[in-house]
Amino acid sequence: MVSDHRRSVELIVNEPPNFLERIDGELWLVEDERENMKISYRIKEVVFAESSDFQHVMILDSHDFGRMLVLDGVVQTTSLDGHIYNEMITHVPLSIHPNPQRVLVVGGGDCGAARESTRYHGVDAIDMVEIDELVVKVCKEYLPAVSENLDDPRVNFVYDDGIEFMKTKKNYYDVIIVDSSDPVGPATRLFEYEFHRDIRAALKEDGLVVCQSQSPLFHRAVMRQTVDQLRDLFPIVRPYLATVPTYPGGFWSFALGSKRYQALPAHPFDKPTKYLNDTILRACFALPEFLRPDSEVGAAR
Amino acid sequence: MVSDHRRSVELIVNEPPNFLERIDGELWLVEDERENMKISYRIKEVVFAESSDFQHVMILDSHDFGRMLVLDGVVQTTSLDGHIYNEMITHVPLSIHPNPQRVLVVGGGDCGAARESTRYHGVDAIDMVEIDELVVKVCKEYLPAVSENLDDPRVNFVYDDGIEFMKTKKNYYDVIIVDSSDPVGPATRLFEYEFHRDIRAALKEDGLVVCQSQSPLFHRAVMRQTVDQLRDLFPIVRPYLATVPTYPGGFWSFALGSKRYQALPAHPFDKPTKYLNDTILRACFALPEFLRPDSEVGAAR
Repeated sequence: MVSDHRRSVELIVNEPPNFLERIDGELWLVEDERENMKISYRIKEVVFAESSDFQHVMILDSHDFGRMLVLDGVVQTTSLDGHIYNEMITHVPLSIHPNPQRVLVVGGGDCGAARESTRYHGVDAIDMVEIDELVVKVCKEYLPAVSENLDDPRVNFVYDDGIEFMKTKKNYYDVIIVDSSDPVGPATRLFEYEFHRDIRAALKEDGLVVCQSQSPLFHRAVMRQTVDQLRDLFPIVRPYLATVPTYPGGFWSFALGSKRYQALPAHPFDKPTKYLNDTILRACFALPEFLRPDSEVGAAR
Repeated sequence: MVSDHRRSVELIVNEPPNFLERIDGELWLVEDERENMKISYRIKEVVFAESSDFQHVMILDSHDFGRMLVLDGVVQTTSLDGHIYNEMITHVPLSIHPNPQRVLVVGGGDCGAARESTRYHGVDAIDMVEIDELVVKVCKEYLPAVSENLDDPRVNFVYDDGIEFMKTKKNYYDVIIVDSSDPVGPATRLFEYEFHRDIRAALKEDGLVVCQSQSPLFHRAVMRQTVDQLRDLFPIVRPYLATVPTYPGGFWSFALGSKRYQALPAHPFDKPTKYLNDTILRACFALPEFLRPDSEVGAAR
């Protein structure tokens, strides 16, 4: 049943830990985060690789997705599809709020959410609180398709822990965007009730928050927990979906919590985007049958 | 830069060609169809593996997706998400046609599209033309989550070439569903103009067709060609999208060509489904900005 054939597989030593392999002479990133499914990307070039105080940071140039930000060996965003995620996490809340002025982005080191926020002329301050300065630095320098080398005087970069930062603000922001990484390690606390409660306090009396809430297929318990916690804290909660090709299964969810506003504007969406438009803005709230509140969903797999 | 560490990688000899590997003692299916991206699935058990006259056919039990149909080493459908694809390719045309009676499924060996068609009481004949009898046999036997062991007297199984079969029918069907595999090898002809022209002739004067038209991200030229050909042949053409997690990038497209009908029914969708519902049925036609007719899309990558 088992042949003697052995392919040439060698790990690339960059710095420990190793995330790249050379297979039959070709360089591959093998994403190892999931126990039962691996996605491998053929890589043209290692543009940047270094460990920060927090994680291993790489910019890789891939054949199918162009340049990618890779943290601890896991693809975070790519030149090909990073705009989908960033447009969806930013323009939905900023379209529903009728007059956003102060915006906070928690995480979002690729600068995409902050960049999309700059499209709103009424927004006069965007605080971006990212724990890892190196991520911001390399995305601004090496990932222009996502960051557009973000350099807007309204953006205030704060390199700090989002959890601690949130405790310092009260009744201050119109919109808060929680663009966290997966709920492992330190990012776990960005999915907890206490953090969502501090977000509510940091928002103005008509403010709203959006949280990325993971895959509705593979992390249904996380999505449910996020939605449930927001429901406990906000009178209006609306989950929505997008297809983000580089995330496992392609399916991704976001949860919007709002103190007052929920309607989309009557005027059509008019920002320069590649994915989101007026029809998507309205269609993204359509939830498949297995995610409807009265279905068996919510139940963790 | 390259370490001496070599992992234990062995290919499983089942029959040539080999599609399974044992890596560090675990069994994996490594999808090798794409040049620059590979998806690997951890496998519990090889339920069935045999070569037919047309292709290598496997049913594998995987950890994350349950049982999967694998043809020539490429995942076609899984217990976890097969219903998404099958519901989307079937219920959209059968909802838009006000009174479908005769349905033809071309391909669709997993039996899912035929099975969904049986949900319509008005449908009295479903011809299912699949070239490979072995695929139908193993899906009925080993993949009940997708096939529901399809056994409905209205379903007429025809094991034949869909191209030749289509030439024999004129002005006959209300709805034709082209559930083809990827446009490689013999399936290529299912994406050609001549086949679409024969479909038009096989449809009644108010009939409609739906074709799976591949990934809008990775096969944009195929999607564009399908839509363009249908536009040449049908007065009404409407592309629509779904998220199918086991297809590359998760994004999948369908193209609907209709001689007369295009409106969705006023009455709400009422079939027993796990993905599609009334809101999805209306939202699936929302195309992202990069796929709008006046965008740069369509242009092959």
